[in-house]
Amino acid sequence: MSARTEALRPPARRYDYVADGPAIYVDSFATIRREADLSLVPADAEKLAVRMVHGSGQVDLVPDLVIHPRLVVAARTALASGAPVLCDARMVAMGVTASRLPAGNEVLCHLTDPEVPELARRWRTTRTAAAVSLWEPRLEGAVVAIGNAPTALFHLLETILAGGPRPAAVIGCPVGFIGARESKEALASFGTDHGIDLPFVTVRGRRGGSAMASSAVNALAQEQE
Amino acid sequence: MSARTEALRPPARRYDYVADGPAIYVDSFATIRREADLSLVPADAEKLAVRMVHGSGQVDLVPDLVIHPRLVVAARTALASGAPVLCDARMVAMGVTASRLPAGNEVLCHLTDPEVPELARRWRTTRTAAAVSLWEPRLEGAVVAIGNAPTALFHLLETILAGGPRPAAVIGCPVGFIGARESKEALASFGTDHGIDLPFVTVRGRRGGSAMASSAVNALAQEQE
Repeated sequence: MSARTEALRPPARRYDYVADGPAIYVDSFATIRREADLSLVPADAEKLAVRMVHGSGQVDLVPDLVIHPRLVVAARTALASGAPVLCDARMVAMGVTASRLPAGNEVLCHLTDPEVPELARRWRTTRTAAAVSLWEPRLEGAVVAIGNAPTALFHLLETILAGGPRPAAVIGCPVGFIGARESKEALASFGTDHGIDLPFVTVRGRRGGSAMASSAVNALAQEQE
Repeated sequence: MSARTEALRPPARRYDYVADGPAIYVDSFATIRREADLSLVPADAEKLAVRMVHGSGQVDLVPDLVIHPRLVVAARTALASGAPVLCDARMVAMGVTASRLPAGNEVLCHLTDPEVPELARRWRTTRTAAAVSLWEPRLEGAVVAIGNAPTALFHLLETILAGGPRPAAVIGCPVGFIGARESKEALASFGTDHGIDLPFVTVRGRRGGSAMASSAVNALAQEQE
């Protein structure tokens, strides 16, 4: 204890609440399992769905989840062999619990790299999309986590269609009102549309976000809850 | 341009989407204003509600928002005079757009400070709650942004009830299944229950999260969208 904290006292308890971190997790997951219809998801993706619901606070997320049948195996195998986690936003990277990753995996986000603004201008795209191209040297076999920008997801799919490197698994959960739904539909139908088998998880509609994307990474990182 | 990026080429466009960052914001906000019933929020909080909806991807968030009538004025005044933004989670801090802050305001999160685990053990509470006590030297007149932990919000209210420093405004948006709803109800009824007038914004129910909390900070930081 430092001098700063030695003198600190907690305020008196005035409310009745659970203040035990692990117990809160256990109770949360139990509540989700009571309320959500998890029969809709692949058997090996049950914990993934629970954790994504947990991150969003909404059990009605489950019917909107679309999970490729090989997603969990593909992502677990990649992470176990040391694949990096490539994130579109720093909030996604920040939400990944490093201690859950099985191989000290790197968690990378290039959005604030100095070259990004100029690339985005030259290519007439968003900075988030331009930053996806900086993934290329690490993209083959990586786990991608997109929680913010529809343009990042479109840019990734276009990179793959152009013959670029293929990630092992894509967590594609951009959020919002312009392009989010469409980018996730493009991901969900990517195999059918283009004959390229790309393991993915996404959520139909406008919902998504960095918490959902990092929750998915945290679920895929370990079998243990 | 570095050598690394000089050689990079963008993939060919294969999808039809808006890839102009500012245009995406404008279109998103216009969509929200078309679809959401903003007559429910205080007039000066319209942009705040729009940005919180934007961060969540859900226009049906609006009926669950509870906004103290003096929230916007209190938060704007505090930020303009240099108040720090105190965050319960690093994802919240990461989501704050520094360039929108009017006075180079500090954005602080103490969750990973070295003393926190020991404080949490001693006080039998969560690390997130214990970290709230480390705000105390900066808490008077600050803007608080809670996007993760119900225990942080309860701990803050208990600190105030114990006669501790009072923030200028509280963005109270913890998410989840255990305590989130109850902590936000406690915030919403704090003035009535305890006769302490505390400007706040919250969202009833389980929804919330770091994106919602940082969206609120970003809206309160500037009048300009």
